[in-house]
Order: sequence, then C-alpha cells, then structure tokens
Amino acid sequence: MDETRLSLIDGEARALLGVHDRGLMYGDGVFRTIRVRDGRPLWWADQLGKLAADAHRLGIAMPEPALWARDVDRLLAQAPAECVLKLVLTRGPATRGYRPVPASPPTRIVMVSPMPAQIEAVAARGARLHLCRLRLAEQPALAGIKHLNRLENVLAAAEFDPQDYDEGLLLDTAGRVVGGVRSNLFVYRAGRLRTPRLERCGVAGVARARLLALAARLKLPVCEDDIGLEEVLEADELWLSNSLIRLWPVSRLGSRLWQPSHLAYSLRAQMDDD
Amino acid sequence: MDETRLSLIDGEARALLGVHDRGLMYGDGVFRTIRVRDGRPLWWADQLGKLAADAHRLGIAMPEPALWARDVDRLLAQAPAECVLKLVLTRGPATRGYRPVPASPPTRIVMVSPMPAQIEAVAARGARLHLCRLRLAEQPALAGIKHLNRLENVLAAAEFDPQDYDEGLLLDTAGRVVGGVRSNLFVYRAGRLRTPRLERCGVAGVARARLLALAARLKLPVCEDDIGLEEVLEADELWLSNSLIRLWPVSRLGSRLWQPSHLAYSLRAQMDDD
Repeated sequence: MDETRLSLIDGEARALLGVHDRGLMYGDGVFRTIRVRDGRPLWWADQLGKLAADAHRLGIAMPEPALWARDVDRLLAQAPAECVLKLVLTRGPATRGYRPVPASPPTRIVMVSPMPAQIEAVAARGARLHLCRLRLAEQPALAGIKHLNRLENVLAAAEFDPQDYDEGLLLDTAGRVVGGVRSNLFVYRAGRLRTPRLERCGVAGVARARLLALAARLKLPVCEDDIGLEEVLEADELWLSNSLIRLWPVSRLGSRLWQPSHLAYSLRAQMDDD
Repeated sequence: MDETRLSLIDGEARALLGVHDRGLMYGDGVFRTIRVRDGRPLWWADQLGKLAADAHRLGIAMPEPALWARDVDRLLAQAPAECVLKLVLTRGPATRGYRPVPASPPTRIVMVSPMPAQIEAVAARGARLHLCRLRLAEQPALAGIKHLNRLENVLAAAEFDPQDYDEGLLLDTAGRVVGGVRSNLFVYRAGRLRTPRLERCGVAGVARARLLALAARLKLPVCEDDIGLEEVLEADELWLSNSLIRLWPVSRLGSRLWQPSHLAYSLRAQMDDD
C-alpha cells in the first residue's frame, strides 16, 4: 500500500468512488486542505467549521464532527507525521439531473497525500508571483466557498511554469485583485494590513481568517476592501496565505521586488501556534 | 446488475473511479449527454466533435473516436434500446495541485442511465419556465463548454419544484438571457429566430447547433445575439433545446402564456432525423 495516498470513503478504507457521485458529475461538493504536523491536523476546529459553513451555503448535509475526527484519527495513524490531509464532502450519489435530491446522504472522503516540497524554501526566499491573464468570474452565490468547481484555478495554474513562479495572482473581470491561485493575498503598507473582499469571487481561506484574527490581536489595523493592482505594486510588503504555506512573503511581481521582512516571519511563526 | 446504470471506465466494466481523479478534485473535465433511440446514439458525429472541441479548449487530450465508439457499442449491447448515454472525459488522475501535469493520460468514462420520463408529455403540452434568481457569472474562458463545473446549474435547479416547472430560465449578471438550466433557448418572432450568444457564459449545446443549421436549411432567418428578458416576453414563440428533449415549446413564463405551434413540432420532428 502507498502510505502517502491513503483514503477513506464514508469511513471505509477505499480509494474508489462511485462514478455517479455528484462530486464528479457536477463538482457538487466542498473541500478542505489541512496541514498535518507531528501527526496532528492543524487548525482543526477552524477547518471543520469552514467545511460546515461552506456545506451549509450549498445546502449539503454536514456529517457529525465526530465522524470526521474518527476518520482522520484512523488515517493519520497510518500516515507520515508530516503530510497533507484533504477532507471532501460531496452531495452524494443520488442524481436525477442537476436538481439535488432532498435529504439524500452526502459522501464523506478523507485523504492523505505527501507534503509538497519547497514550502519552507519559498518562505525563506520569498514567492515569485505571476500575474495571471485569466480573470475570475463574479459569482456571489459561490464566492468565498472552497467548492469542487475549480476549473478557473486549473486554467490559471496552467499559465506559468513552477520553475519560474511560485504562485499566480488573480484579478476579477473588473480588474480588482482577488488573491493567489491557491492562496489569499495581504497588502501591508504604512503599518496597515488590507486584504481583498471576497463577496464576488475567490475563496476565504482558514489561514486568511487566522491571519486577520492574529493581526487584530496584535493591534495591527486590518481591513477587507476592494484592492486594485496599483495598490499591490505600491505595497511595502505583500503576503500570501494558505493552510499549508501559512504565510509566504512575496519577493517579486513583474519588475517590482520586495525583501521579506521580520514582521512577515514573526507573523508566520505565530500562525503556527495551533 | 442494474442494467440501467452500466458504465465503462477506460474501456473496463467498472463503476468506481479513483478518488484522486481530477474530475472529482477540480471538476476538471468535460461531458456529453446523448439520446439513445433503438439502441443507437443520436447525433454521434456532432456529439463526439463537440466533446473534442471542449476538451481542446481545456487542453485535455481527446481519446481516439474509435475508442469511444467501441466503448459505446459494448455498453449499448447490454442497455435498454431507449436510454441516456453520457460520455465523461477528465484530465485524469495525475495531480500535484491545480496545475495540469503535461501529457498525462485522461480518464474516459461511458455511462448509461434511464431516459427521463415526461419528455414527450412536456413536449406535447409545452414547458413551464421558472425565472431563476441565480445569475450566471461571466467567464469567457469557460463559456460554451460543457465542463464538469456545474454548481451554478445545481443551485439554479434547486430553486424550483419539478412539479410546478419543467425548466429554469437563466440570466447572466448583466441581466442578459442565457438559456435554460439544462437547455438552450430560442426566441421566434415575426418569422425570425434568435438565440443568445454564448461567449460569456452558458453551454453551446449540440441540439442548439443542429436547430440553427436546420433553420438555415429551411431559409428561416437566424441570429445569435444579446437578448433581454423583454424580448423573451414579447416572443411569438419560445423554444428550448437539448439532446434529450430535442425541442420543447414553452407554454408559460410568469403570467405570459404561449400556445405550442405547428412550426415548433415540425422542427422537432425534423431534428429527430439523424
């Protein structure tokens, strides 16, 4: 067995899903990507809370937290101490066209995969950002949710070579900055922290929420707002966040260069406290 | 075995797909829904051509037509003579984040499911349309493609009870008419046929292309254009198209009523000629 690719489906050790599942047919589901450190899933309560909130927005029944916890305990007992945990919740196999079948049981998937290399190396040198040509569509009904409809992210990620760039920067169709392809963005300038509002598109990640809360505790002024590309280029510092990287300082966007700062690394270290 | 739910994955009689497949993880794939009549898939060349065109737009490798044909022959030999055939093509199991792995093999799925009831009954009495509250996002990079990111359709279909309505009418965020939740829309007025342009959102279906071609052969003036809701309400006739229903005349939208016409049924019958 490949211990880096373990999975449970509805609590059973399986790696195969019914082909009629709405997760495959329509991308009708939500997911979470979670860092596992020393065998423990980090930010667990936040992650499960976000999964429940996203499921609620789509009207997908959320399994009991105890079921998720039992699955995760079982899987992590066989997994490397440092790995990536993925929770997937789909609306299940009941399909008669697009319309959801009321009160049908969802599908609960827990997966483990290897921790990507380079996370710490990029944190140390700073991330190189590619400005994506793809613009994110504005869909308030899905904005903020980490759902399984991720073709925009796939197309954006295909735009750049990971040898040259560590992340892509996404704008919406109106030219507002939304965030990274797989991360949220923070703009730091003159002692103030700003991050894009995510009511029209983008994913409101758990790391973003934790960084906002941490900044508030540190009395750092924070604001969610509409942010343009000029503001990004005029930033004193630019940071990316997600649950795996926690925080990456950005070192380059086009010809604009930044030096990673002590503040960035201090915040990054404090985000690690679970 | 449930003969109404047969499936082949990469040519093997299987109903289970690897949980790491990008079709599930990201909705990273395309599909086709095909009417089977007397054991034959209708509009086969058009369907396969559209699947290839959609796959090309997403950069997914298209398997040889002969492979699809062999799968379909095998499956239909065991299936009811009247059923629904679904072809699904995903970017395959190779995943290391959103970025597609170049030259990785796709996953080829062929499925059979029962023909929905009521198609002929609705055709006879006319379809009752619900005006959906959900507005379609404008994403030119995905517009026209029948891809696996269908959460907008799921949310729109959840808005209405199929006891009361046969289809939902979708507008985009700017208020332009796009089409039905699972169909394309045609507006007929004063001898002229118009259908929404689909460069910003929506799916450009095979039935739509066939109806446009048929109208052109019949010297009926046809035009793809921006269409507003007022124009829909002022139509002499309103038609919906997809590969299963072929053409449904619309009988009701809000308080506006229409009578199904001879023209609609004549076109519907001619669409059936393969």
